[in-house]
Amino acid sequence: MLTPAVLESSPAANPALPLYQRLAATYGTAIALGTLKAGERMPSVRELMARHDISLSTALQVLRYLEEHGCLEARPRVGYFVRAAAAALPLASEPDLSQPVQPNPHAHFVGINEHISLLLERGRQADVYMDLGGCTPPAALFDHHYLNKTVTRLLRAHPTLLSQGRSLLANQGNHPEFQQAMARRALASGIRVAPADVLATTGNSEGVSLALAAVASPGDMVAVESPTYYGLLQVVESLQLKALEIPCSPRTGMSIEALELAFQTQPRLKAVVVVPELQMPLGARMPDEHKARLVALCATHGAALIEDDSYGLFVEGPQAVRPLKAWDSVSGHVIYCQAFNKSLAPGLRQGWMNAGQWHGRVQMLKFAQSRNTQTLGQLVVAEVLGSPTHQRSLEKLRQLLRKQREAMARLVARHFPVGTRLSLPAGGLCLWLEFPAEMSTSELFAAALDKGIRIAPGSMFSNSGRYEHCMRLACTHPVDGLMEQAMATLGAMACRQLGQNPRS
Amino acid sequence: MLTPAVLESSPAANPALPLYQRLAATYGTAIALGTLKAGERMPSVRELMARHDISLSTALQVLRYLEEHGCLEARPRVGYFVRAAAAALPLASEPDLSQPVQPNPHAHFVGINEHISLLLERGRQADVYMDLGGCTPPAALFDHHYLNKTVTRLLRAHPTLLSQGRSLLANQGNHPEFQQAMARRALASGIRVAPADVLATTGNSEGVSLALAAVASPGDMVAVESPTYYGLLQVVESLQLKALEIPCSPRTGMSIEALELAFQTQPRLKAVVVVPELQMPLGARMPDEHKARLVALCATHGAALIEDDSYGLFVEGPQAVRPLKAWDSVSGHVIYCQAFNKSLAPGLRQGWMNAGQWHGRVQMLKFAQSRNTQTLGQLVVAEVLGSPTHQRSLEKLRQLLRKQREAMARLVARHFPVGTRLSLPAGGLCLWLEFPAEMSTSELFAAALDKGIRIAPGSMFSNSGRYEHCMRLACTHPVDGLMEQAMATLGAMACRQLGQNPRS
Repeated sequence: MLTPAVLESSPAANPALPLYQRLAATYGTAIALGTLKAGERMPSVRELMARHDISLSTALQVLRYLEEHGCLEARPRVGYFVRAAAAALPLASEPDLSQPVQPNPHAHFVGINEHISLLLERGRQADVYMDLGGCTPPAALFDHHYLNKTVTRLLRAHPTLLSQGRSLLANQGNHPEFQQAMARRALASGIRVAPADVLATTGNSEGVSLALAAVASPGDMVAVESPTYYGLLQVVESLQLKALEIPCSPRTGMSIEALELAFQTQPRLKAVVVVPELQMPLGARMPDEHKARLVALCATHGAALIEDDSYGLFVEGPQAVRPLKAWDSVSGHVIYCQAFNKSLAPGLRQGWMNAGQWHGRVQMLKFAQSRNTQTLGQLVVAEVLGSPTHQRSLEKLRQLLRKQREAMARLVARHFPVGTRLSLPAGGLCLWLEFPAEMSTSELFAAALDKGIRIAPGSMFSNSGRYEHCMRLACTHPVDGLMEQAMATLGAMACRQLGQNPRS
Repeated sequence: MLTPAVLESSPAANPALPLYQRLAATYGTAIALGTLKAGERMPSVRELMARHDISLSTALQVLRYLEEHGCLEARPRVGYFVRAAAAALPLASEPDLSQPVQPNPHAHFVGINEHISLLLERGRQADVYMDLGGCTPPAALFDHHYLNKTVTRLLRAHPTLLSQGRSLLANQGNHPEFQQAMARRALASGIRVAPADVLATTGNSEGVSLALAAVASPGDMVAVESPTYYGLLQVVESLQLKALEIPCSPRTGMSIEALELAFQTQPRLKAVVVVPELQMPLGARMPDEHKARLVALCATHGAALIEDDSYGLFVEGPQAVRPLKAWDSVSGHVIYCQAFNKSLAPGLRQGWMNAGQWHGRVQMLKFAQSRNTQTLGQLVVAEVLGSPTHQRSLEKLRQLLRKQREAMARLVARHFPVGTRLSLPAGGLCLWLEFPAEMSTSELFAAALDKGIRIAPGSMFSNSGRYEHCMRLACTHPVDGLMEQAMATLGAMACRQLGQNPRS
């Protein structure tokens, strides 16, 4: 359990925050300290109103904040209860918005790519028994029997599928059944896309990379989330664009205010790339009201808004996820990209995109750069995606990931240094950790690798140097004895680096 | 049969050509005129020496020239015989090297891509019964039973193949078995490549596109063959590079002299892209001596030489094909790319590359732009490629394509305008046609489309406007009654455009 000393700098004492956030922080701290235990009932709306003399809406905000942050879970008609993993650590901190957003002068070609390549190369050469860096669920979590049976069945139904080059006449390699299936799927989340406007892509990197190549020219600027998935920083760099990192809340994602300011000061800002649901690596979920503002803001400034919606599938709970693209009814300035690598079959590398007003240009670029996408993968996804079998295994995957995230959070609480904070996202494959500011996760990366453990240090997720004390922690592996050992080893190393005694 | 009038401008009368070429043209004309008939024995080396008072080496050159040009075939220990298709038409003309090579000022972004997109779009909307434009063999020509059985067997042997994301630690998505198979294969054609330096790609467009992105920056110049595959012009354009079209002989490919001159006058010439075997669309085969000079020339000028070797597999006859890369033993400035779309399974989109000294950079770009290539396709190719079954079906495919090329050449001779010339390549999927200079194949494209026939007009293969009177003719379809009808229709339209009476 954490000592109260660490919690003094918590948001509860920060007068700059709105009242509901300060109250939520108080309860978050109580949960972290064990005052409120896992499974315990949270005070009701009425109790909160009376206890703190606040309005109904503030009380509701407090509860929703804690729920969105993964501290509480709602049981319909009963009330809010403390979630197991929440009884662990203080929440990751909100970004400091007092600093103006500036493009990083070092975001040139040998920036992040060189850094990532070096890290990956070092990781490749080491003898790793536990990979806490990569975030793809292991093969065992997918229903491979069903996938393989689908492939065999498709090859029986279309015997010449692999021998068939897509005629240039036929949708440039986009299979009509795949296009239909994606358009139907999009409609279900509030997006109207004509089947003919569905472009099959290799995973999602290809989609985002084509989108950026279509809307921006070398030297142009692209707003990205900070921290963000390092793959995006690589794409931005390899297209000779400049990444402008916009601060992100671990709860609500990209700061719309900071982006607004960026538009006012950066005339070459041509595109914004956002993961609105379960942002990678923070796990933030952007509220609908922010989504609407973001779509409108980009329209006003004539910028493309590139949406990566690959993680929306992992949101836990019954609420429907509404993509940014759903707010783009007229101008077509939102480019929607989705991949099924992590949710359906990592080995297929299948994704799709709708490029809005840039459809023709993206199609042209795709055709020039890699021609058509394999048909087999398209048909497998079209077939599997809507099936009850897949819906069931996806639900199982979500539940398993939730258990693993919570178990990993408990291991962090047990073994990691005093003062460690973490995100508790409402779904997804990872947690985001903030160590005390003096920590260097680059050093931890090197030390852990020597012990056979690979982590993803914070420096992978930004060009700004702002996340040296952070790391992304994959929650895709079973939390067993081996994991406990790995986390204890990692925690002890981190404690030593900070001059703390190992916790266990 | 053609009238002698058309042949007056033939190379036989051109004093600028070397003696052996003039003699070869004389015999080529004799074959075209029916003086020497299909299947007839060609005069032997001794007979030629005596008849023309020439040296042994000149006589050999004459015979080899005619063989390479597809006019003769050698039967071991018997002699040379006139090939069936050769009895058709005069050969495609050699390029005019008297004009200096200049970068085309119009090779900007809305150049070829816009043009190609428009053509493809018009083709897509038309009701086409005969596609003579696309050059992918139809599915019926591949052994789909064997392919599908291989997939099923692989999925049985590796049940989690589709569920497996390639760990970032493991060769960045390049499967070791695929790497091994490609390295072994390369060795057989004289290239030494370490398995770890084999990068899996989606088809060949991705390979060439990554290669160009790695070696050149926006504004740089790239030497390409003229005419060339339009896909390459699209890649060059979409990377904001400038294409410098180097004249090509329909027999020996890119003019090394013209390239040498280009290096002297164009300081931003950073890369050369060549299809040394069965150049697309001419079908030229670069002689080994030219290959050696080309590799040395690029080394001298510090330029990357990007080799697309996807058609070498289609060379007919027993002689081993030696890629350019085989001459690159020290500096690693040759980037080798190969795809198996057209020879093994169009639907798999599987290719590979070895990026020589740019290996790290290409790997980084590939990782940023599309991550790893699907594993299933890699394993299928690794398994199928070396199998006797595949060797047999590839040999059958070659023979069939040869018959179809020859049959198509006969249809050209029968129905197409007087004065039409064509290439007779030593293998491959197409023929290249030159109509008399007043012809517009853009007009022919539009007229043919109205009749349900799609062709690939010369304007697709260059930014220079030099091939308006040319077209590529696919030979991938069976030559049956429907084809005869399509070719008669096309020929009649072409004759009308030139003010000639239809031939049939």
